[in-house]
Parts: sequence; structure tokens; C-alpha cells
Amino acid sequence: MGLTCAERLAELGLVLPPPPAPAAAYQPWDTLGDTVYTAGQLPIVDGALLRTGRLGDPLTTAEGAELAATAALNLLAVGAAAIGDLERLRVVKLTVFVASTPDFTEQHLVANGASELLAAVLGGHGVHARSAVGVSALPLGSPVEVEAVLTRH
Amino acid sequence: MGLTCAERLAELGLVLPPPPAPAAAYQPWDTLGDTVYTAGQLPIVDGALLRTGRLGDPLTTAEGAELAATAALNLLAVGAAAIGDLERLRVVKLTVFVASTPDFTEQHLVANGASELLAAVLGGHGVHARSAVGVSALPLGSPVEVEAVLTRH
Amino acid sequence: MGLTCAERLAELGLVLPPPPAPAAAYQPWDTLGDTVYTAGQLPIVDGALLRTGRLGDPLTTAEGAELAATAALNLLAVGAAAIGDLERLRVVKLTVFVASTPDFTEQHLVANGASELLAAVLGGHGVHARSAVGVSALPLGSPVEVEAVLTRH
Repeated sequence: MGLTCAERLAELGLVLPPPPAPAAAYQPWDTLGDTVYTAGQLPIVDGALLRTGRLGDPLTTAEGAELAATAALNLLAVGAAAIGDLERLRVVKLTVFVASTPDFTEQHLVANGASELLAAVLGGHGVHARSAVGVSALPLGSPVEVEAVLTRH
Repeated sequence: MGLTCAERLAELGLVLPPPPAPAAAYQPWDTLGDTVYTAGQLPIVDGALLRTGRLGDPLTTAEGAELAATAALNLLAVGAAAIGDLERLRVVKLTVFVASTPDFTEQHLVANGASELLAAVLGGHGVHARSAVGVSALPLGSPVEVEAVLTRH
Repeated sequence: MGLTCAERLAELGLVLPPPPAPAAAYQPWDTLGDTVYTAGQLPIVDGALLRTGRLGDPLTTAEGAELAATAALNLLAVGAAAIGDLERLRVVKLTVFVASTPDFTEQHLVANGASELLAAVLGGHGVHARSAVGVSALPLGSPVEVEAVLTRH
């Protein structure tokens, strides 16, 4: 209702982190025409991974959803840097990889943590198509990894 | 030969299901320019997942391929709704996630169930680039999940 | 410095393999506008998979990185065929699937094998956004599978 994305972030008590520095062998995003492809984002805060381990054991669905939201906050930072303006960011497609024990089957509920944050901050422009899958392990032992296709609206 | 996609579907004894309703946190597809990104589709019929469990144990490759074909039928429904016309649908890229035991290595044969259905219904426009990977688990315990990049031809 | 991509390949002692033949149910790449989507590439040389098995057991990170580089060489072959000219190839997005034991967490280091080869051959046009994830198994028992979004520059 008239709030900017930056204001919605502040109401959620969140601060957009600085965009991640490019790693040695790849960069945080690349652009082709109107389409921005992001690198996979982890639940890293101030350079440190918040948790390690898999969903199912030891992490719960609620913990996973919070971690997914943190990864999505990093995605917003990448997107704002790529587009040049958080207010013009639109999320088109989200893929959520969830490190999972073989019997954990709530990847979609973990992914909701990311999806809901994006919609809370970006409004309708944060609503996207999505896949959520359970993987055996992720870099650095991260419980979740979130990548997106983004654009400017 | 001159058959429409709808006629090919009927010859296969298949009926296009209604497109899935948007879930709470995301939508079944999103469009950016000419490109349609779909959400991951599961082998759901009339709102119920046909099977649960992993390929390798207890599911066989043949069972997995059938389930992948059912997920691909849901993909056709999403695509027809997104494009507005099944007859104009083209499949560009398919990603097939297969819930797999660590020693199951026929993900490509499972994925053929989806690829072959798409080609049988859409003809040349159903032939696509593809990745098939084995994951540890999928939402709701689904054995397969199929997502696609689609366009209008 | 003024070297062509073909000359850089030769300096690395590498030869671009022939592009893979289309498989029965899908094709090695598909194009939508300026965007080329590749099929997932395996570390296959002369039609044979170099190794099978997972990272963590029995394969080491260094072995995985070499295998990822071989898969990336096949990706270059697909891209050169799709674009029609290796010298004009640009890599936009790379996804690296690494067959992993649940406690292997160096997927990003394995993926560097692919990323570094692409940059070594294509220069700045080989630098891309990237996701690396650990999966339970891959087709034919492959340790790695690499797919990309490519374009012409």
C-alpha cells in the first residue's frame, strides 16, 4: 500500500546486505538481454554461514524456512545490484535446493521461507514460478541454496 | 501427420488436466518476454500424488518413466494455460529431478518418459534440451519433479 | 592477449570434441532467441565416461574438478556447434551437479574445474553466474553433470 520495497524491508527489520563479491571462478550474476541469472545464494550473514547440516536431521522445517529466507535476502542484494534499483526488481523463477535426508519431504515448505520473503518485500513483483528439490549436500555444508531468474519491471 | 496436438493427446488416451491453481507462495508459471518458466510439476492426478518413494528402492525405472510422463502431462497443462493454446506450445529446456538411491543411475531413462510424451503430443516442437539428475528427496515424497522453459511457436 | 579461443584451447593441450549426437528423446541444445540452453554434459571422452562414483567416496575433490573440466570441454563443443563459432561463445549461467556423499561439501571446488576451463578458453566471455549442488546420483553413474545457458557475443 504505497510502501516502497526499501520501506517493507525496514518494517521486517531487515537490512539489505552488500552484494557478494565475485568469487575467483565465477560472478554473483550475469545478464543476457532483460534476464538476470544469479549465482546460488547461501544463508550467509556477515560472511559466515548461519548453520550447516541437512533438513530432516538435524534441522527442522521451520529452521530450514528461516535459512531459506536469509538466502533470499542475499538474493535481493544481488538482484538490486544487478538491476541497479531494488524498487524495480522482479523475480521470475526461483530454484530452491534443500540439503535433505532421504526421508525429508517438506522441501516446498522450506522453500516457502524464501518465496514469502520475496513477496513480502517486492509485493506482486516478488511472486514467481518455483522448483524445490532435496539434494544430498551443498557447498560448505549449507542447508539451502537459492538461485533465481530476475528482471527489471 | 496433420493431427493436432489435441488429437494426438486423444489418440494416446490422455486428457489434459486443468492447470494447477497457484499455491500460496508461488505460481505455476511466470513469463519473461517470449520465455515461460514453469514451476516443478509432480505426478499428481486429480490432486493426489500417484506414488511416493525413490527410484532404485522401491521404484523401478519403468515405473519412474511412467510417473515422469504423468508429470509431463501436467507440464503440458501449465504450458497450454501459459501460452493460451496447446497447439502453439514449444518445449525448449526440460529439467528432470529423480528421487534416487545412491546406486540408481538410470535417471536419463526415467526422464525419457517425460521427453517422449512431450514429443508424442507436440511433435518437433516437443523436442528439447534436457538435464536429468538424481536427488535425495522431493516435495511430498514425489519420485520425480519436472520443470521446463517453454515458448510459443 | 590476442590469442583466439582455438589457440587457447591448443595451448592447454585440448582438442574440441565433435558435438554430441542427439539422443533418442532429446537434443544437445535448443535455442530461444539469443539464448542457448544446453543438455547436461558428462565427463565423456570418445564415447566413454571417464569415471563413475560419487565425490566423497571414492572420488576426491581434485579428481572431481578434473572431471568437471572434461564435462565443460563437451559443453564448449555443444556451444560452438550451437553458436556456429567458438570465438563468439559467451557463457551466461552454469549449473554443476556433483554426485556426492551426504558429508561431501566441496561442490564449489569441484565446479571450479569447469568454471576455470571456460574462463581459460573463452576469456572474459567464459565468466558466468553459477550454482553448484550435490546430488545423490547422476545418469550412468557419472560423478558430475554440467549444463549452461549460453549466448553469442
